[in-house]
Amino acid sequence: MHVMPAMPTYNFSPGPAVLPAPVLERAQAELLDWRNTGMSVMELSHRGKEFTGIAAEAESKLRTLMALPDHYRVLFLQGGATGQFAAVPMNLTGDDAAADYVITGNWGTRAHAEAGKFLATAHVAATSEPHTYVPHESEWRLSGDAAYLHITPNETIQGVAFDKLPDSDEAGVPLVADVSSIILGEPIDITRFGVLYAGAQKNIGPAGLTVVIVREDLLDRARRDTPTVWDWTAMAKAGSLLNTPPTFAVYVATLVFEWLAALGGVDAIAQVNRRKASKLYAAIDESGLFANPVAVANRSIMNVPFGVTGAVLAERPDLERRFLAEAAAAGLVNLEGHRSVGGMRASIYNAMPEAGVDALIAFMKEFEREHG
Amino acid sequence: MHVMPAMPTYNFSPGPAVLPAPVLERAQAELLDWRNTGMSVMELSHRGKEFTGIAAEAESKLRTLMALPDHYRVLFLQGGATGQFAAVPMNLTGDDAAADYVITGNWGTRAHAEAGKFLATAHVAATSEPHTYVPHESEWRLSGDAAYLHITPNETIQGVAFDKLPDSDEAGVPLVADVSSIILGEPIDITRFGVLYAGAQKNIGPAGLTVVIVREDLLDRARRDTPTVWDWTAMAKAGSLLNTPPTFAVYVATLVFEWLAALGGVDAIAQVNRRKASKLYAAIDESGLFANPVAVANRSIMNVPFGVTGAVLAERPDLERRFLAEAAAAGLVNLEGHRSVGGMRASIYNAMPEAGVDALIAFMKEFEREHG
Repeated sequence: MHVMPAMPTYNFSPGPAVLPAPVLERAQAELLDWRNTGMSVMELSHRGKEFTGIAAEAESKLRTLMALPDHYRVLFLQGGATGQFAAVPMNLTGDDAAADYVITGNWGTRAHAEAGKFLATAHVAATSEPHTYVPHESEWRLSGDAAYLHITPNETIQGVAFDKLPDSDEAGVPLVADVSSIILGEPIDITRFGVLYAGAQKNIGPAGLTVVIVREDLLDRARRDTPTVWDWTAMAKAGSLLNTPPTFAVYVATLVFEWLAALGGVDAIAQVNRRKASKLYAAIDESGLFANPVAVANRSIMNVPFGVTGAVLAERPDLERRFLAEAAAAGLVNLEGHRSVGGMRASIYNAMPEAGVDALIAFMKEFEREHG
Repeated sequence: MHVMPAMPTYNFSPGPAVLPAPVLERAQAELLDWRNTGMSVMELSHRGKEFTGIAAEAESKLRTLMALPDHYRVLFLQGGATGQFAAVPMNLTGDDAAADYVITGNWGTRAHAEAGKFLATAHVAATSEPHTYVPHESEWRLSGDAAYLHITPNETIQGVAFDKLPDSDEAGVPLVADVSSIILGEPIDITRFGVLYAGAQKNIGPAGLTVVIVREDLLDRARRDTPTVWDWTAMAKAGSLLNTPPTFAVYVATLVFEWLAALGGVDAIAQVNRRKASKLYAAIDESGLFANPVAVANRSIMNVPFGVTGAVLAERPDLERRFLAEAAAAGLVNLEGHRSVGGMRASIYNAMPEAGVDALIAFMKEFEREHG
């Protein structure tokens, strides 16, 4: 038998991540009978007026939250950002095309590798080594004939974020970005981008839903052998209903969008997010026990990796494991760093309450007093 | 304001479809706090022991229900059956390969069209015209060098089902089948198949989950440019965890599998399904107002299309619309036939209680007394 934790659980998972409590409560209340239909949302036909209404609401609420102009189309797809790693070159290039990738962490690395299956040249325009900073744009080596330029504005694993967007879209090369871990967490100037895509499971809703936002003039470029479910043009024409969408995930996303709008929207939550991140980085920097390796200008406000300093860890190699175990016992869960980098990581998306960050900071100070 | 229906709602949607009431009740009860973790299943990290435990349970329960031998691998993917229409040729053939398709309805037509993007020859070995029967195997024209033979054992839209599986797998050509609408509804002799795939939203769980069952010797054949999330070999190696799976849908599927096992498994539910279907076809055949066009041997036990007879409809063209409106008012909803064929259709998957079929039959008799 599990034992109910005595204090609230704060879930720092990088995704699937914590969801807003009011969203889960509403989903629970409506689970057996959505709006007196006698049916769960999971049981609604995706072509009936009930679900098409939900999908329309999801799109309209997201458009409002992100201030999307009419010439950007919103698609609700499946397959995650990893699916779009393939769909991006399929939709934007012919068989013998090149594209530029700026790589600042694991996800950019994976996006580039997947694109290599479909591009004649998947060019690395720049990469950081180690992934603790974003190379300055003056050092990028763009290929000159790229069909697009791909970036990962926030790297979830390394906690590395772009502090400034590149200017390349102005030169006619569309900028494509994996915004899985920053969408709705801070304002995004959509006019700088050709395509944004995001897995839902961080700031949007449950895993299994992928959001793609594409500028209209970039449609109609898909290669012939693009799978229908990832053909942005066909999906845009069909209102994302060419096949059965992940209906329940779309519904929960709608509830998240409503929750965020009621809090004041993206500008308002971004202020909270910046405050949460500032506090946590300050606690790390002021500590003698913990450290974060990322260049200050490129520190993510969504994912904060940290570890016990190398000097201490050399003497006490079990200290991070101990931190994680004691934190979990105190209700601070899923603080493990990604298996590729180790250490700790606090993912503090929109739905992580400021009280959760305060509790983590208090726990870190207490841990340092005991073990520092 | 909507008004609560006075009688129970019976949802005949072809998918997303009705789910078992005990499954929805359990999902509701656990929605905020799964097994005293303080987290919703939607919030569990897909790499944590809680979710990997759920996924392992899902696989093991499905293996038991379907009596899957060890040399068949089970994958939990995204993108629906429509995604697998592309993934099948990608995973089973090289660039210059041929495959055979037997087409008996809309889904086979779409599977064949999608495969045409990836195959040198997507050969139609046989097709019914109209789609009211399965062409006899003696009339099939197999290409002789096919990498696989594809069938749709149950066509959801036309309600056409194979009464007998082809023998071709014995000749070394693997048989591949879209079993979206029959998986778990009746026993399937897996040893006759190389690959089965199914969207979850009929007999397994919520939309957004795709199940693929592949015989081990058919792995390691994927072409180089197979997207990672649909690469069966890579996904089999990674336990379907190469990227974030649709975690909540996997969890609900586990609850459905448990529910079905408690009812006695596939053999037991197949008896109920056959009884439900027999009753409904008998009511149609005995009626002077309604008709079903499918050859008796090929009538689906999952999807029962029917319409007002042509003679009556010629005089009273509004009668089907009226049937649908009055049925909905009586709590019998989503009986519309697919938009490509019109008329009515009752989808009576595992989770449709026999009482729902009885209620539909009673309503049909009453409607015929009033309008016949």
